[in-house]
Amino acid sequence: HGARKMEDYGRFLVLLASALLVGFVSVVLSLVWVFHYRGGLSWDGSAGEFNWHPVLIIMGFVFIQGIAIIVYRLPWTWKCSKLLMKFIHAGLNTIAMILAIVAMVAVFDFHNASNNPNMYSLHSWIGLTAVIFYCLQLFFGFAVFLLPFAPVRLRAALMPIHVYSGLTIFATVIATALMGITEKLIFALRNPAYSQSPPEATLVNCLGLLLVIFGSLILWMASRPHWKRPPEENVKIQRPIGETPEGTEVESTMTHSGNADKSDLRSNTEAAKKQNIKFDEAGQRSTM
Amino acid sequence: HGARKMEDYGRFLVLLASALLVGFVSVVLSLVWVFHYRGGLSWDGSAGEFNWHPVLIIMGFVFIQGIAIIVYRLPWTWKCSKLLMKFIHAGLNTIAMILAIVAMVAVFDFHNASNNPNMYSLHSWIGLTAVIFYCLQLFFGFAVFLLPFAPVRLRAALMPIHVYSGLTIFATVIATALMGITEKLIFALRNPAYSQSPPEATLVNCLGLLLVIFGSLILWMASRPHWKRPPEENVKIQRPIGETPEGTEVESTMTHSGNADKSDLRSNTEAAKKQNIKFDEAGQRSTM
Repeated sequence: HGARKMEDYGRFLVLLASALLVGFVSVVLSLVWVFHYRGGLSWDGSAGEFNWHPVLIIMGFVFIQGIAIIVYRLPWTWKCSKLLMKFIHAGLNTIAMILAIVAMVAVFDFHNASNNPNMYSLHSWIGLTAVIFYCLQLFFGFAVFLLPFAPVRLRAALMPIHVYSGLTIFATVIATALMGITEKLIFALRNPAYSQSPPEATLVNCLGLLLVIFGSLILWMASRPHWKRPPEENVKIQRPIGETPEGTEVESTMTHSGNADKSDLRSNTEAAKKQNIKFDEAGQRSTM
Repeated sequence: HGARKMEDYGRFLVLLASALLVGFVSVVLSLVWVFHYRGGLSWDGSAGEFNWHPVLIIMGFVFIQGIAIIVYRLPWTWKCSKLLMKFIHAGLNTIAMILAIVAMVAVFDFHNASNNPNMYSLHSWIGLTAVIFYCLQLFFGFAVFLLPFAPVRLRAALMPIHVYSGLTIFATVIATALMGITEKLIFALRNPAYSQSPPEATLVNCLGLLLVIFGSLILWMASRPHWKRPPEENVKIQRPIGETPEGTEVESTMTHSGNADKSDLRSNTEAAKKQNIKFDEAGQRSTM
């Protein structure tokens, strides 16, 4: 049993290391793209200002957002308080939001300075929508799950929506980045064109593939129920044993089935006990 | 309690109707795009052959795949046998695969006839990868879950991977479609260009937005645990009451927590009984 747990822990670490590596290489490739092929970074309305856009999006809106999503899954944080982890989750997402907004400003500045129209492409439509939803998600997440005012029932009802929105926005951000890469390679590569597959095209296509792999790894880690943060130790019994209302479970529906080792053989009594703990944990968690 | 169930059923129907409407309008918009702006369909190596690509991808790889994903969720199919539903699920996915392959052939034909290079763009790299993974998913799904040879343990171990792969491939297909739309609008629109926002650009941008909305609706419906197909009626007891190994649950981890109405207050004994039914159901389902 213990060996199985260790094996599962090892598997998590391998996936985490893979995600960090893929994310890190993505950021490096975006810098190589910008510095080696596109004249580097500046903030003067030139192409150098545009270049902040892919760099900040990949660093903030993809990499940091991805880490923010799985931060509750890191086993060595399970001894930290849930409140601390909420602050880290919210903090990372705030950083990602700021970087995404600066990345957008860079493009608007560049377009305006070079008299290019704004907001005509599907990339811009979906990208702006994703940023707006991301801000709303952060605002409601803060108001409902971090501030101490929302009742447990409300938190329980909104948690599945919070998880679903978060993962859907994350996937949409990656899709938008892929559209942006496509646009930029078509516009920027002339003689040889994109269709001639110059080294820059191959490099940036690989960057796009890495973004898809990064997103897939994060979504896998976020949606495995047995990698969830386990219930708090200091469980308070809040309700008679006979009542286990499922509706008060605060945890996500995407990753719902609790933290039990899947190989665990448990008796009915133990299963019933766990049901109660799950409820208590929900109360515990949602009141921080 | 009954009223709550009806309300939840009503909510499902509203979402299903929305998804069907958005998917149907997407297919119609792809036809309007192709017939009104791009000279219609043909199979002669001309642009008319290329036009099959967006139409078949949106009809098959997006719309039909989306329906295939949620086909187990339709409440009026719950009285049908699980085996029949598996055939429908596999059949719809097979149709989607064939349409996706024909859509690819159309592009290769068109490129070859017009001496355009193949497989240079990020769209083509990720699109071909998605088609290959989709074929593998279908093959392994057929071998493991439809043919009667795989043992229950193997099915239980592979089901979460099957669900995760299916949803990730589906999301990747939509992302690839958005890249394809971006490419085509940039290449096809000259005078006025894409950046001048001619009516065709606005129409096809709206098509792209609808694809994102369609994908979001399907992912929401697929990942709500209480909208899952309930356990079979004719449960066979296969194991002593005391043992409820969680590892044999065949159902997905993404949509894991069973079918209980969330408002349901249940006693410990009932919870324990349900645990057993869940296991039996897993055996039942995975042996068809």
